[in-house]
Amino acid sequence: MHTGVSLKLLQFWSVNGSSAGPSSLSFRSHTCGELTAHHVGERVSLCGWVQYLRQDMFVILRDFSGLIQVLIPQEESASHLKSVLFDLTVESVIKVTGTVRQRPAGQENKRMPTGEVEILAESVEVFNVCRTLPFEIKDFVKKSESLRMQYRYLDLRSSQMQKNLRLRSQLVMKMREYLCNVHGFVDVETPTLFKRTPGGAKEFVVPSREPGRFYSLPQSPQQFKQLLMVAGIDRYFQMARCYRDEGSRPDRQPEFTQVDIEMSFVDQAGIMSLVEGLLQYSWPAEKGPIKVPFQTMTYEEAMRDYGVDKPDTRFSMKLMDLSEVFLSTEINFLRSALSQPEGSVQAIRVPSGAVRANPFPVPPGHTKHMLQARMYLYVNSSSVSPSYCTSRSQRPLLGNVRLLCAELLESRGVSVRDPSAFRFLWVVDFPLFLSKEEEPEQLESAHHPFTAALPEDTQLLYTEPHKVRGQHYDLVLNGCEIGGGSIRIHNASEQLYVLKNILKEDPSLLSHLLEALDSGAPPHGGIALGFDRLVSIIVGAPSIRDVIAFPKSFRGQDLMSCAPDFVSEEELKSYHISVKWPTERGGEEEK
Amino acid sequence: MHTGVSLKLLQFWSVNGSSAGPSSLSFRSHTCGELTAHHVGERVSLCGWVQYLRQDMFVILRDFSGLIQVLIPQEESASHLKSVLFDLTVESVIKVTGTVRQRPAGQENKRMPTGEVEILAESVEVFNVCRTLPFEIKDFVKKSESLRMQYRYLDLRSSQMQKNLRLRSQLVMKMREYLCNVHGFVDVETPTLFKRTPGGAKEFVVPSREPGRFYSLPQSPQQFKQLLMVAGIDRYFQMARCYRDEGSRPDRQPEFTQVDIEMSFVDQAGIMSLVEGLLQYSWPAEKGPIKVPFQTMTYEEAMRDYGVDKPDTRFSMKLMDLSEVFLSTEINFLRSALSQPEGSVQAIRVPSGAVRANPFPVPPGHTKHMLQARMYLYVNSSSVSPSYCTSRSQRPLLGNVRLLCAELLESRGVSVRDPSAFRFLWVVDFPLFLSKEEEPEQLESAHHPFTAALPEDTQLLYTEPHKVRGQHYDLVLNGCEIGGGSIRIHNASEQLYVLKNILKEDPSLLSHLLEALDSGAPPHGGIALGFDRLVSIIVGAPSIRDVIAFPKSFRGQDLMSCAPDFVSEEELKSYHISVKWPTERGGEEEK
Repeated sequence: MHTGVSLKLLQFWSVNGSSAGPSSLSFRSHTCGELTAHHVGERVSLCGWVQYLRQDMFVILRDFSGLIQVLIPQEESASHLKSVLFDLTVESVIKVTGTVRQRPAGQENKRMPTGEVEILAESVEVFNVCRTLPFEIKDFVKKSESLRMQYRYLDLRSSQMQKNLRLRSQLVMKMREYLCNVHGFVDVETPTLFKRTPGGAKEFVVPSREPGRFYSLPQSPQQFKQLLMVAGIDRYFQMARCYRDEGSRPDRQPEFTQVDIEMSFVDQAGIMSLVEGLLQYSWPAEKGPIKVPFQTMTYEEAMRDYGVDKPDTRFSMKLMDLSEVFLSTEINFLRSALSQPEGSVQAIRVPSGAVRANPFPVPPGHTKHMLQARMYLYVNSSSVSPSYCTSRSQRPLLGNVRLLCAELLESRGVSVRDPSAFRFLWVVDFPLFLSKEEEPEQLESAHHPFTAALPEDTQLLYTEPHKVRGQHYDLVLNGCEIGGGSIRIHNASEQLYVLKNILKEDPSLLSHLLEALDSGAPPHGGIALGFDRLVSIIVGAPSIRDVIAFPKSFRGQDLMSCAPDFVSEEELKSYHISVKWPTERGGEEEK
Repeated sequence: MHTGVSLKLLQFWSVNGSSAGPSSLSFRSHTCGELTAHHVGERVSLCGWVQYLRQDMFVILRDFSGLIQVLIPQEESASHLKSVLFDLTVESVIKVTGTVRQRPAGQENKRMPTGEVEILAESVEVFNVCRTLPFEIKDFVKKSESLRMQYRYLDLRSSQMQKNLRLRSQLVMKMREYLCNVHGFVDVETPTLFKRTPGGAKEFVVPSREPGRFYSLPQSPQQFKQLLMVAGIDRYFQMARCYRDEGSRPDRQPEFTQVDIEMSFVDQAGIMSLVEGLLQYSWPAEKGPIKVPFQTMTYEEAMRDYGVDKPDTRFSMKLMDLSEVFLSTEINFLRSALSQPEGSVQAIRVPSGAVRANPFPVPPGHTKHMLQARMYLYVNSSSVSPSYCTSRSQRPLLGNVRLLCAELLESRGVSVRDPSAFRFLWVVDFPLFLSKEEEPEQLESAHHPFTAALPEDTQLLYTEPHKVRGQHYDLVLNGCEIGGGSIRIHNASEQLYVLKNILKEDPSLLSHLLEALDSGAPPHGGIALGFDRLVSIIVGAPSIRDVIAFPKSFRGQDLMSCAPDFVSEEELKSYHISVKWPTERGGEEEK
């Protein structure tokens, strides 16, 4: 059943007498979904799709706002009208003009927002007759993902996709109002045809007409937003299209949208307040209010209590350190664990675990993980607690077990996480650098090389850089990272030191940024919110594909138009490139 | 002199006591440009750039909002403060805290919005000391275009660029309010990684990880906006990033922005009203009101009276047909012209022409044009009229002469076009098809193959397609085309006929669109406005580069970061392409 889309946000405004609202300038006088008993007696024109043809008596007409019942007059004088309507197929597009009337007593449909009324048709205009479709546009009809993608223009007719796209549009509109009108931000568009960034292995390349030279589609406007601060723009935002070529990864898109924000003369607390206000202001009313300020947790606390830097705080089941309890244990494996450097015994108390899941099963597919983690189950009458001997670096495995326990319990009907809850969390005080996996003495940026150190840690940059914490903040919602940002380095020599001496990168690739910092750069910082992910959590969609109008498949393909597609060698000539076709032996050769 | 940027649009809104406005959440309490005599006695904190250091007494501080004079205390007790400020260079970034006071009598600066007051400094914090810059940030300093582009982050500090980018941001915000909040449009983002469109020679290609397969960066979301109508979105808009690879062309950008609009159940008049309302609602107040409805002219009228399909209606000097006058002329060349098919004698009356430009000179560089046009000057006491013998197809030459006359007169001090006037014009009833230059029997779309015929001309599609007029409308402002749109074909068989039988194109490349039209497509139409061009006309900028934060040079380069740049063969491997380097003989070879 289609539910009416909220149009309450429309502020009606009239210019020179022309109307406003969702039916302005249109062939229709009203939308299908807005008609109620208040309209009885009014002559209306409606445009939409035939949802059902019932008993040769009714047409159920649909537009984006909902459904309405149209009564086909049965008199001989209306025989032409009757025959036109009878010849229609479902999903044909028509305009109906008629009068709104109360449905006869007993024929109301309480589950339908317009169920008290119906339209007595006077005339009909057929705009288009619909062929037989590959699937029916009914919410109860299940379709495969690939069919949905191939016929996306049909899939988008579903009430859920209509709702998702409209909520997305309203959310972004409110965000813009907040940033532009409330806080004086400037919406600046930055280029997407840019230079390859150092180490930008995931950047798509775009050949230019100059031989050998390529643009790159940037993963974010990071450099531009900082340059705009140097340029004195003061407060910048953009709904920025970003690109990331990750090959085939589930629920990633090669292009995505981030709410990109940068401010001058601001500190970490300022950006965090701004984002809290932004989400509060733009939050859809029907999802209930959200409270600010959000909870804040240090990276250390998150790793200690949840075994992950993006904890799902909708439920507890924190990791507990039981090392003290087992200090004088005679159990061999625990004793040996505790004797290791940073060795500890950790447990998770799982409420109802013993009752509902006794014995607690190893989740399918995770046996290997569990064994690697040297996991053991500790059972008592009221809980099942996986207890664990581990070094600090193995905490993520425990964090994963915590989430698996929640999933398992929920699959057995235990209520663990409130599906309507939205738990925001700031994670702060991240390490600025991490050891590279393949070369542990060499440091790499935990986030990016432009993040400033915590003021109290700045001196450590020059002595013990691995101990430096950054002015970085991640925003987490229900256990998903939905944003991250930082206060940036605004001092050119500090930025040069980080690039050259700590990260051992070639600073000449960022010479324009270093020069800019040396040209009167203000202190500045910002954040980027993953907009697709945020919307998908708000609407409860299983995938970000459900909040994007025309997404790519997980292999990066548009199944509707068959993109990417072959291009002739002739067309590639002006770009001075040619295709290297893989050979059977795995090598490549010219065509 | 920096002029204050209008912040009147800010609607103040408070959440949980946190402030709003341009200084919210910031190290400053006020912006430099907002201080007036009303603030005298207030203690304020300001952040900004050192614009001038004057007489060891004053610092002129600048932020995006304007300038303010800071008085350096001269007492012995303030010697530290004094020495800090004296050591600064211009464009260094500081925070000053102090008290607003009235300037001493006689020292006010009336040309400065804050010229009645000054700040008596109490303390200062230096955020960054600026090196010597490649050019000064003073409005009177002339810089070469390439220097501006190379140091764009400095160029953007100019008051004009600040104004341009802020006006652009406010304009787009108002447009969104109008479309979303007033008329219920849905802001939908469409993909930029898409399939190459038939004949899309100007589309950038993006290699994918599948050998030989490429995405294309589309020139507009044309297919997506129509598919969204088929999908029942009803009203779509997007500030759409579009791409066009035209090589080197002056004042074109490889990426640009269009206000992209599509509506269902609407006719041409509806779209035109919508756009008139959109521009009226969003028009910057300081540019004066604009009147709606806009003037409308058919393509025939435009070509007849102005010799061009985008007439500059800020001045008259229309083409006049004098053929009747010369019907029995004995002047040979006129008689021979009139004897040709469609031959005529045309004239332009140039007011003040005889007085100011006697004899009227041939504009430099246009001699050849004028000769080709077989142009002769007809002089009498009050006007200079280039009279002309021509067939219909030569009218654009006369249209060009008309514009050249206007330029010439203006260059000699005659007022022809009001530089503060904004004259909008709709041009309608375009031919739907034009003959191909190289193959005159073959027709091509005047705009694009999706435009519907005028209802009264639809039958001609099947008999005399060259006579069909389209439901296409161009929006012209001061002689520049700033938008174009049409009512689309919503009938699959009509669309197939146009593609296959009239345009002789392979319809299989658009099979997804044809299928969509056959799946219950509503009648629909839309428009796209060239946003960069529109903003550049509003602010009176000589180039669209002046309303884009980081534009490319006319050769498509980013002079700041040196994009496009070389990419290693290694990095190209995952995209299965290699560079074909041009050889000296003009051919190409593998590296």
